[in-house]
Amino acid sequence: MPKIDPARLIGDLRRLAEFGRHGTGVHRLSLTDIDIQSRHWLCQRLTDAGLDAQIDGVGTVFGRSRAKGPVLLMGSHTDTQPKGGWLDGAMGVIYALEIARAFAADPACAGLGIDVASWIDEEGHFPVGFLGSRAFVGELELKDVTGAKSRDGVALGDALKAAKLDGVAPVRLEPGRYKGYLEAHVEQGGTLEREAKRIGVVSAIVGIRGGVAVFKGEQNHAGTTPMPLRKDAAVALFEFATRLNRSFAEVAGPHTVWTFGRVVLEPGSPSVIPGHTELTLQFRDPDTPRLDALSQRLDAMLAGTNAAGPCSVVLIQPRRTEPAPMDAGFQDVIETVAAKHAPGLVRRMHSAAGHDAMVLARHMPSAMLFVPSIRGISHDIAEDTSEADLVLGCQVAADAAAAFLKA
Amino acid sequence: MPKIDPARLIGDLRRLAEFGRHGTGVHRLSLTDIDIQSRHWLCQRLTDAGLDAQIDGVGTVFGRSRAKGPVLLMGSHTDTQPKGGWLDGAMGVIYALEIARAFAADPACAGLGIDVASWIDEEGHFPVGFLGSRAFVGELELKDVTGAKSRDGVALGDALKAAKLDGVAPVRLEPGRYKGYLEAHVEQGGTLEREAKRIGVVSAIVGIRGGVAVFKGEQNHAGTTPMPLRKDAAVALFEFATRLNRSFAEVAGPHTVWTFGRVVLEPGSPSVIPGHTELTLQFRDPDTPRLDALSQRLDAMLAGTNAAGPCSVVLIQPRRTEPAPMDAGFQDVIETVAAKHAPGLVRRMHSAAGHDAMVLARHMPSAMLFVPSIRGISHDIAEDTSEADLVLGCQVAADAAAAFLKA
Repeated sequence: MPKIDPARLIGDLRRLAEFGRHGTGVHRLSLTDIDIQSRHWLCQRLTDAGLDAQIDGVGTVFGRSRAKGPVLLMGSHTDTQPKGGWLDGAMGVIYALEIARAFAADPACAGLGIDVASWIDEEGHFPVGFLGSRAFVGELELKDVTGAKSRDGVALGDALKAAKLDGVAPVRLEPGRYKGYLEAHVEQGGTLEREAKRIGVVSAIVGIRGGVAVFKGEQNHAGTTPMPLRKDAAVALFEFATRLNRSFAEVAGPHTVWTFGRVVLEPGSPSVIPGHTELTLQFRDPDTPRLDALSQRLDAMLAGTNAAGPCSVVLIQPRRTEPAPMDAGFQDVIETVAAKHAPGLVRRMHSAAGHDAMVLARHMPSAMLFVPSIRGISHDIAEDTSEADLVLGCQVAADAAAAFLKA
Repeated sequence: MPKIDPARLIGDLRRLAEFGRHGTGVHRLSLTDIDIQSRHWLCQRLTDAGLDAQIDGVGTVFGRSRAKGPVLLMGSHTDTQPKGGWLDGAMGVIYALEIARAFAADPACAGLGIDVASWIDEEGHFPVGFLGSRAFVGELELKDVTGAKSRDGVALGDALKAAKLDGVAPVRLEPGRYKGYLEAHVEQGGTLEREAKRIGVVSAIVGIRGGVAVFKGEQNHAGTTPMPLRKDAAVALFEFATRLNRSFAEVAGPHTVWTFGRVVLEPGSPSVIPGHTELTLQFRDPDTPRLDALSQRLDAMLAGTNAAGPCSVVLIQPRRTEPAPMDAGFQDVIETVAAKHAPGLVRRMHSAAGHDAMVLARHMPSAMLFVPSIRGISHDIAEDTSEADLVLGCQVAADAAAAFLKA
């Protein structure tokens, strides 16, 4: 089996975290100067590992194996959230680099290939959504999104030009090349830590639905408008949220979560009855029939509110991302090899956050492996994972990659 | 009985509305240049009516009768809301002016006095609260509030200096001088119009209580935090508001109103569980025991929420204005004379908004008379009342003033 080098792994992780270091975390937004510098560094590391490496026309760093045998695609992303963590994405990319090196040094892996990708902009600095992986699989064309503007107001096309990537062809999925895709990631939640597990084998990535419920009532004076004459859009919103909360609980499964993240009351003055209110809601589940059941509850609540009055409600900006089940055979392979390293400390679990593996899973057998997040913290400079868990996760991923390719 | 002059009344109301005209409404904030100009105009009108008139040291315009007999204090305010209506306050002041003139011309009113006041800043351009009437009755000292800053950031002391009023003594209530206080006002609600009444006799001005309920939970990731582990401050707020809404309905009287005017969810992102939320609530009733019952319900809901968890709640910025009952005998006088002019079209009612009469009622028998507001609109340039109702209201107020002084 390929043997990973813990010092080299941790060293590269720490070196990458220097690009855009922010306290104990990292601020490295897609296609900014520091991000481009880190991509050139990564390209060199991949080249040193014997891969044919390049930064492609959308900014994805891609290292192609020269092996003749079956090939596994591995990767994640190296862009970060604003003031984000040092491992979110970066870990999966450096795991892939380390595993490519371990394969090259292991005679038992002769002929087996690891292609390494750092998909550009998983964190959505540009409002495109999984730009790198979707461009790779052919789900979007660069020319259709060059006008998309970053949080800083820079158009994607201009950012690529500044990075001297304009005119460079995007790397595209080569049909038949891959046996599968493997992405390792920090959990970003507290489940593994709470249950004292060390490896999570992802069964599915959740689907996300929701939207903004907009209530229309009648703005009026809070003193002179008798209660029976009111059309209070705030009261309608509170009732709706409270009843939907109970209704969802009746059909929720063990993995269902739902959140009311944002409320707007207009005009928002203590002495004025709100005439227009907005409730942003979102629900997630790894299972489509469950999501459908929740959607039915939401639709019924919307219809019931409109039928009962006195306020009307409509759902705008509907959001719908389908769940992405991970390949069952690949999950079994990971669980088997993980159990050898950490018997009893492996857990099947879903991912409650989106990842590039959602995109790749539509095109090849895909899998994800989680390592514990300390205190479940992510999207924050406090994000961390113990070195022992980082090393264990990489060795399990290496063994799983080898076993999957040899199966 | 004194006979008012409809053309003179309407003419003065329209002339006053020219100061700060804004479309069909008026923008005349306390102690701004245009407001001071209007006060000089009013002073001259009061002088022409035979009163000893002045602008006092806080900006109140005061016209003092030279009559020897019993005196009635009348008035309201001539400052307006930003882009407000032309009658809110102004009507009561011009009624008082017109009635002083009618008294002077009526031999049957010989010896009966009408003092006329336009109390400064009823609308709270400076955050003092009923500045003019409270300074008059001695409930506040000017020197304690000269630092109060207007919406425009001007200190009250500087505004008075700019108006050349610094050093002018405030007019103070002369003990024993008044038999009572009468304030006429537009209703600002839709009750009279809905019931096709023409005169409202105010039984009491409501008390107002409330505050801001602040919920503390735990901010977390909307995907990776399982429902049983959440401390969702938004859900806590929705539950609280919904249950308080029902609890209040159980103890509400016919005049009780309550409003949730403002909500804050922190951080307010679709994918983050809110850890800090705020709910601004306000309730009004003309009756203190009823307000106490509502307060008990609120206290119980706060205690119950804290006992049940998982979020805590505390009420900050508590607000408490006591109800002000109007003088019973004075109400009877108004109702009797009103019924002669408009039989069957008179209604006892409370005032759901605050007025200077709240302050005066603590120091002398006080009463208020309402005329209908078209479509119940106020604090808006669309505010209006029919000319017939404006004239009727003034004649009823004149007759009531005479009858009250002669009683």
